[in-house]
Amino acid sequence: MTSSASKSWLLLLGFILFYIIYLLLGALVFSSIERPVEDKLRNDIQTMQREFLNQTCINATALEEFLVKALSASEYGVSVLKNSSLNSNWDMASSMFFANTLVTTVGYGHSTPLSDMGKAFSILYALIGVPFTMLVLTASVQRLMYPLVYAPQALFQRSGLNPRPASQLHFALLLAAVLLCFFVAPAFVFRAIEGSWSFLDAVYFCFMSLCTVGLGDFVPGEQPGQKYRSLYKVVVMVYLFVGLMMMYLLLRAFHKMADLHGLTSFLELPHCEEPEGDLRPILGDGPTDTAATKQPLEPAAQPSYNTISKG
Amino acid sequence: MTSSASKSWLLLLGFILFYIIYLLLGALVFSSIERPVEDKLRNDIQTMQREFLNQTCINATALEEFLVKALSASEYGVSVLKNSSLNSNWDMASSMFFANTLVTTVGYGHSTPLSDMGKAFSILYALIGVPFTMLVLTASVQRLMYPLVYAPQALFQRSGLNPRPASQLHFALLLAAVLLCFFVAPAFVFRAIEGSWSFLDAVYFCFMSLCTVGLGDFVPGEQPGQKYRSLYKVVVMVYLFVGLMMMYLLLRAFHKMADLHGLTSFLELPHCEEPEGDLRPILGDGPTDTAATKQPLEPAAQPSYNTISKG
Repeated sequence: MTSSASKSWLLLLGFILFYIIYLLLGALVFSSIERPVEDKLRNDIQTMQREFLNQTCINATALEEFLVKALSASEYGVSVLKNSSLNSNWDMASSMFFANTLVTTVGYGHSTPLSDMGKAFSILYALIGVPFTMLVLTASVQRLMYPLVYAPQALFQRSGLNPRPASQLHFALLLAAVLLCFFVAPAFVFRAIEGSWSFLDAVYFCFMSLCTVGLGDFVPGEQPGQKYRSLYKVVVMVYLFVGLMMMYLLLRAFHKMADLHGLTSFLELPHCEEPEGDLRPILGDGPTDTAATKQPLEPAAQPSYNTISKG
Repeated sequence: MTSSASKSWLLLLGFILFYIIYLLLGALVFSSIERPVEDKLRNDIQTMQREFLNQTCINATALEEFLVKALSASEYGVSVLKNSSLNSNWDMASSMFFANTLVTTVGYGHSTPLSDMGKAFSILYALIGVPFTMLVLTASVQRLMYPLVYAPQALFQRSGLNPRPASQLHFALLLAAVLLCFFVAPAFVFRAIEGSWSFLDAVYFCFMSLCTVGLGDFVPGEQPGQKYRSLYKVVVMVYLFVGLMMMYLLLRAFHKMADLHGLTSFLELPHCEEPEGDLRPILGDGPTDTAATKQPLEPAAQPSYNTISKG
């Protein structure tokens, strides 16, 4: 491996390390802001429930009042039910899970900040975190394009296939691999761990999460008495991150195939950029071509500005 | 305007028309699948509430049982409260709103499909809808890049600014305009319409929506007795779509600026592609250069394959 290739992977490692630190930092702040507010809400709702139960006869108005508060507490992830009140939504693992769903834009919303400070911090946190996560994902996919897209496609071409069928075959294989490893296999695991989920529920969860829709009707590790809850939450976070990476890779491979078939030109959309900077060191061309790297720094080399001034 | 430029805008119009048809179709299917299930759940929960109220004395176990069902119904958007049971979550406007939050990956999750059929259809619907929405957004932004990014930057350069400060000034102005038009102004409107939202709540909603996080703790048009609810939902949908477009435009402008400052090269990330196909017709260079458009069709012109076979 050349020095520029190691520099490239070192940069990625730095990104991922910073990403983890950012999540830990977010977890610490969310936990310290929201935990006391959650505890207060939990106490209030329990007191209210006791008072409601102490009444001599059932009153429709009292029940309605109690329900209004119970439902609004439930929206923030605080349940009045006996067996679900043990887990906090804002312990370190849950807070980190929340921070992760914010920056990846999945946003289940099964627990949401209660306080104004929590909401304001969420905005600030996502403002930096969302673009940074996109950067980490892009950088990771950029470095995976050669081993997972270009190299296998080149292999197919060397075995006699033309570029178009080679890209189709490659895309079909990649799609099957992603479906198996990131949808079917995790769905079996989730169905086994989460007592109440059917296989369809588990597939639905995987799909809605990796498309970043994140409806939040199914969230792992929320059942009462979940074993190794913190560890489980961390594993789900890693699954989500790697899964998103693979979805993005799939999208880029599709974009590449669409380019090759003239579809992007036909629809007048941007083409998929070749990761030149990354291919060169892997292919062992020696040191990086600094002239090419510096090109965007020179204003005269910007085609758009030249084109515009000609107009 | 040249004929290729009109073709380009006609294509975009076709995309947007198809997008609207797709949303209407989704709304129809979701409504017909989920409405009966929702009605049944609503009836069940009301019967249960009546039975609970008919008891002579309050029983902690009975309350717990009732609450389990009331809270699980509430997760699907069916409330036991008197004043909130009037609106269905699956009428045409709400179903279309749900379809829209699926395909844009915002996914509030304030109402989610109850039935297995609804879940399976959600997967299928998002599978086609999410990439298609990305296509429509990309195509729209591609056509907005010239008037909103390239033209103003060229104007600044013609007034004597260098490319770098010109791109910085342009980005700052664009950011301020987007903040004002898509965050501050809508937040004022939402605060005025939604009785219980503070200004921070409204900004938090705009931000979490346009980042596609979509936590769902604040969803417009869900308060009981909302006037012109259907129309309001449609307007919010348009706001979300145009807002997402502007967020994407902002991201591309930032990417362009990062290219110009050598940041993308430094971090070894892909560069922002110039919308050549779109600039030419606008600048009036005559008919589109068909050789350039056809380039991706010729395998020999693909730099990646050449590079790989050299390795």
